[in-house]
Amino acid sequence: MSGSVVIAGLGPGADAMVTPEVSAALAQATDVVGYIPYVRRIPPRDGLTLHESDNRVELDRACHALEMAKAGKRVVVVSSGDPGVFAMASAVFEAVESGPDTWRNLNIQVLPGITAMLAAAAAAGAPLGHDFCAINLSDNLKPWPLIEKRLRLAAEGDFAMGFYNPRSKSRPEGFARVLDVLRAVCEPGRLMIFARAVSTPDEVVRVETLAGATPEMADMRTVVLVGSSRTRMIRRDGAPFVYTPRSVPA
Amino acid sequence: MSGSVVIAGLGPGADAMVTPEVSAALAQATDVVGYIPYVRRIPPRDGLTLHESDNRVELDRACHALEMAKAGKRVVVVSSGDPGVFAMASAVFEAVESGPDTWRNLNIQVLPGITAMLAAAAAAGAPLGHDFCAINLSDNLKPWPLIEKRLRLAAEGDFAMGFYNPRSKSRPEGFARVLDVLRAVCEPGRLMIFARAVSTPDEVVRVETLAGATPEMADMRTVVLVGSSRTRMIRRDGAPFVYTPRSVPA
Repeated sequence: MSGSVVIAGLGPGADAMVTPEVSAALAQATDVVGYIPYVRRIPPRDGLTLHESDNRVELDRACHALEMAKAGKRVVVVSSGDPGVFAMASAVFEAVESGPDTWRNLNIQVLPGITAMLAAAAAAGAPLGHDFCAINLSDNLKPWPLIEKRLRLAAEGDFAMGFYNPRSKSRPEGFARVLDVLRAVCEPGRLMIFARAVSTPDEVVRVETLAGATPEMADMRTVVLVGSSRTRMIRRDGAPFVYTPRSVPA
Repeated sequence: MSGSVVIAGLGPGADAMVTPEVSAALAQATDVVGYIPYVRRIPPRDGLTLHESDNRVELDRACHALEMAKAGKRVVVVSSGDPGVFAMASAVFEAVESGPDTWRNLNIQVLPGITAMLAAAAAAGAPLGHDFCAINLSDNLKPWPLIEKRLRLAAEGDFAMGFYNPRSKSRPEGFARVLDVLRAVCEPGRLMIFARAVSTPDEVVRVETLAGATPEMADMRTVVLVGSSRTRMIRRDGAPFVYTPRSVPA
């Protein structure tokens, strides 16, 4: 049996958002590798070895997966959300490119998943219903000035935005600076959504204005959405709907 | 039984990419409404009425869904891809906001799906593995200068990009202008992906450079991806992998 690596998106948390093709890949796997909380979502069974690894060892994990595939295993690398959005797919291809030549002809496949930004948008209504950007706010892997530049350009272009990794304990000040950049370009009433632990029992979706937003509203389990200047709120009994209209008048 | 409207994403085409929560909503629906090719993906059954409608009547379709829900039906509005990404969710909320007050307290839910851009990225590797933008290139609902402005800002910010509705028979010249805008900012070797009918039997994924791209490579079934300046190609037997590394050096 020849080996393979499938990089599979588990979606934001709910099993009801895992696609059938991802479930099928997991059912056929001999080995599952991934960050601890994602691997713990996979039920153990005979013939399946679960390999949990810590955060920030993505390249080691990718190399491990590729080595096992080379040895004939059917490996699934599990990612939260979509593996191609700030997740494991790029790490695997980085490992392929810098690894032995034999790795690049392995059977490697990416299976998309529901990314957190789109699950958060669905939970709030349709705030990303027009042109939008996705920005990773972590400066672990890129310089902070590039983050500020992209924020400014996205705001000038009146894109809606989705932010991943908005705030961590190691850089609590970053998200405050993000709010400052947005406030320099956008009006105070600009709608924002703080969506924490979307599709899990801990889900909290909070609608705010840019003026009312504070850094503490975000943590590493939160996806933050920012509307465009045309994003609107529909008040109703219970949580409001937030949506961006499809059209922009001339 | 009180009525409801579920706006559900069917993903880009393959049934294996339809989430279980969307399948469950369809199994409980009394009425399904949507654009003809999407409704035709739903198998008929007793107790289910299928309502096909043409393209460009999104608001009428939304009002019809809301009226039926008000009358007690369990309505599913089907969208291709993700309903919140250039699809039916915003149209339904536009109808809710401008409709009778009773509509806004209806049970309305959006169920996310695999959007074409992310399915295309997965088919090619991980070209959207870093910050990216999604832009609808149709100028049916927004002025062309805004499209050009957003393209230019996204290119200046070195975002990867995903383009929806790149080219239609009614505006064949638009995508040529998009290529001109990109060429004014990006280097000729910038990687692009033309992904047609992703996840269907007709799928074709073509990797090009900006210099080699021509307007004819896109049509309305094509999603076009543009890498950032850091996006790389891994040559191998068969189709190459295209990916954007996770890091940007200082």
